[in-house]
Formats: sequence, C-alpha cells, structure tokens
Amino acid sequence: MKVLTFWFELASTYSYLSAMRIDALADEAGVDVHWRPFLLGPIFAAQGWNTSPFNIYPAKGRYMWRDMQRKCEQYDFPFNIPDASASNWPRSSVKAARIAIFGMEEGWGREFVRQVYQAEFVDHTDISDDEVLSGLIQKSGGNAEHALTAADMDANRGHLRANTEEAVSRGLFGAPSFTVDEELFWGDDRLEDAIEWARRG
Amino acid sequence: MKVLTFWFELASTYSYLSAMRIDALADEAGVDVHWRPFLLGPIFAAQGWNTSPFNIYPAKGRYMWRDMQRKCEQYDFPFNIPDASASNWPRSSVKAARIAIFGMEEGWGREFVRQVYQAEFVDHTDISDDEVLSGLIQKSGGNAEHALTAADMDANRGHLRANTEEAVSRGLFGAPSFTVDEELFWGDDRLEDAIEWARRG
Repeated sequence: MKVLTFWFELASTYSYLSAMRIDALADEAGVDVHWRPFLLGPIFAAQGWNTSPFNIYPAKGRYMWRDMQRKCEQYDFPFNIPDASASNWPRSSVKAARIAIFGMEEGWGREFVRQVYQAEFVDHTDISDDEVLSGLIQKSGGNAEHALTAADMDANRGHLRANTEEAVSRGLFGAPSFTVDEELFWGDDRLEDAIEWARRG
Repeated sequence: MKVLTFWFELASTYSYLSAMRIDALADEAGVDVHWRPFLLGPIFAAQGWNTSPFNIYPAKGRYMWRDMQRKCEQYDFPFNIPDASASNWPRSSVKAARIAIFGMEEGWGREFVRQVYQAEFVDHTDISDDEVLSGLIQKSGGNAEHALTAADMDANRGHLRANTEEAVSRGLFGAPSFTVDEELFWGDDRLEDAIEWARRG
C-alpha cells in the first residue's frame, strides 16, 4: 500500500471539501494520508493571474459558489456563500499555511486546517489576521503564542516554500490535488479515485 | 419530473464521457434528456482565449489527457492519448455540431455524437473533414449526402448559434454542462448530481 499525499491550499474552496472528507475515507480504505499545504499564488502568477480564476472568470466564479453550496448540503458541511458586495475572497493564506505546517508536526494541524476553512467559508472571517488565527489554533489544541512564533521561523517558512516548489515540479496546477508516487489527481471529485489508487498500491 | 438538458461541445474530451454515460443513467432514473450541442469557441474567445485552456495551460493539459485515460479505463470506453508531436487538438467542431443538430431531428444524432467522439479520441481523425463526417453519418444511420446539405442550411446553422447564445445566457463556461430549469451543473463529474436533481423535480 502507498501513501496518499493531500495537497491543499488554505484559500481554496474545494480543498475544504477534501479536508472534511479525506481522513474518514482513507481510514476506511486503510490508506495513510500525508497532508501538505502549498500556495497557489505563485502557480497562478506564473500563468499570468493575479487572483483566483474564479474571480477572473465571473461565470465560473458564480458557478463555483453555487456548486460549493450544493456539495456542502449533500455532505452536510456548514457553508455560506459570501455576500458579493463584502467579498474579498481569496484572503491571504500564507500565514495560515505556515501555522498548518507547524501544527502537523505537533499533531493539531489537521483540525486547524478544518477550522480555518470553516472560519473562511462559514463565518467569512479574515484568516490572515493574527487574532483570528490565534483563536483557531487554540480551538485546534495548539498554543497560539508559541505556534505563531514557530510558524514564522525561517525553517518553517522554507518548508512551505519547498512544498510549493515540489507541487510545481509534480505538475500541480490547482487545489486540492492528490498524489500517489507520480500519479496526480486533481479536485475533490477525484478523492475517491486517488484513495483507491493508493489502496491498490 | 424535469427534463435534463445535456450541453456538449464536440471537441470537448470530457463531453465524450458524458455522451457515453448519460442515456443509461437517465433511463435508470426515469429522466428525459435533451441533447444540445453548442460551441465553446465563442465563449473562450470572450475570455481572451484562442484555443482550449488545456493548450494554454500545459500542466492542466497534460493532466487532462492522463485523467481522461484513467477515466476511460474505469468506464471501459475506448480512448487513446494523442501523439503530442502530431496533435492538432482541438479540431474544428462546427460542422459536426451542425450535423448533430440535424441528426437529433432525424433520430440518429446521439449515435452520431458518440461516433464523432470516438473518431476524435480513439482514432484521432479529423472531424472537420467531409469524408470522415460522411462515414460517421452512415455508421449512425443517416444519409450522408442529405445530412451534409441539410446541416449547412441557414435554419440549421441558426439553431447552433441559438444554442451557443442560450448557453452563454445560462452562465455556461465549459463542457459538458447540464441544466435543469435554472440549475447549472458543470463537468462529467456532476452528471449523477444533475440526473438526481431532475429526478427529484
């Protein structure tokens, strides 16, 4: 059996679905999952985009929010479409991603990731704000003051950069993505296929 | 129960999957399907793209061909990744789309659509070539000479233009798409959800 790597971006709506689903599905299949946050910003910038394609292509953006709403209803996950007039999505996710990396080492990272998504997509709070982040760290079982400092250390920052570089070198172009060795799966809709691929080994 | 409209583009790889799957799934659910070809070219052009996004964004393109290969294996549909050096995908699909519209009226349109996809994605023949198209019409139960003439008539051309205009006005931005009244579903991965939406009425 192979390890499944779960590549997620903390500003990505569809990554929220996978973060909520992946552990139960993988447990059932007996597959180990490695959670790796990365940043889509540099990948989008290389394609000439300075924001999410969901903002650049309005028809696609409108669809995405409605689709997320339907999917969350289906899965029974909390979700609220942002008020268009107030929307400044996507928020900067770099701080949250650094904290997630540190939290994975300490064991509360997965819960923190799920908390970040709910803060973003249910309550529409600013996940780049230290106070908001502190609250989410505590809720997830971490020590906020310690985590904020540790997340900002050079080694930890470098870890996130390395994740993003590896994502690019593996051909990732969106989130969530899943890899099993060289095999790449893109999108929450491929989560089941990716798990099955890992299970078959 | 509602009618499900199946919006497809004859140059679209993922539309092939839905064209192969939709009738059996809809029959099982007791849902009626209305097949409507449209053109993505004008929609992409409005976004500043002069070819498929799978060509514009190479990482996404490479992924798409591999993903199609995996999905076709899963569904047991024939498929071959095109030879990159020889690839001139996407071929112009406008003639094939006009013939499909005429064939829907005559009853052989759905089979013609499936034949076109296989000619494109299994044999990699040029689906804008009259001789290729004639062969596909005959194979599908139509009269090639008659169909080529009828497909090129003003009313039939106008029908395809109207489909594309309606697709835009309904917020479509890719193919395949499915609509049930105002509800839009994008991508072969949403086919089951769209059928369920129609079934619940």
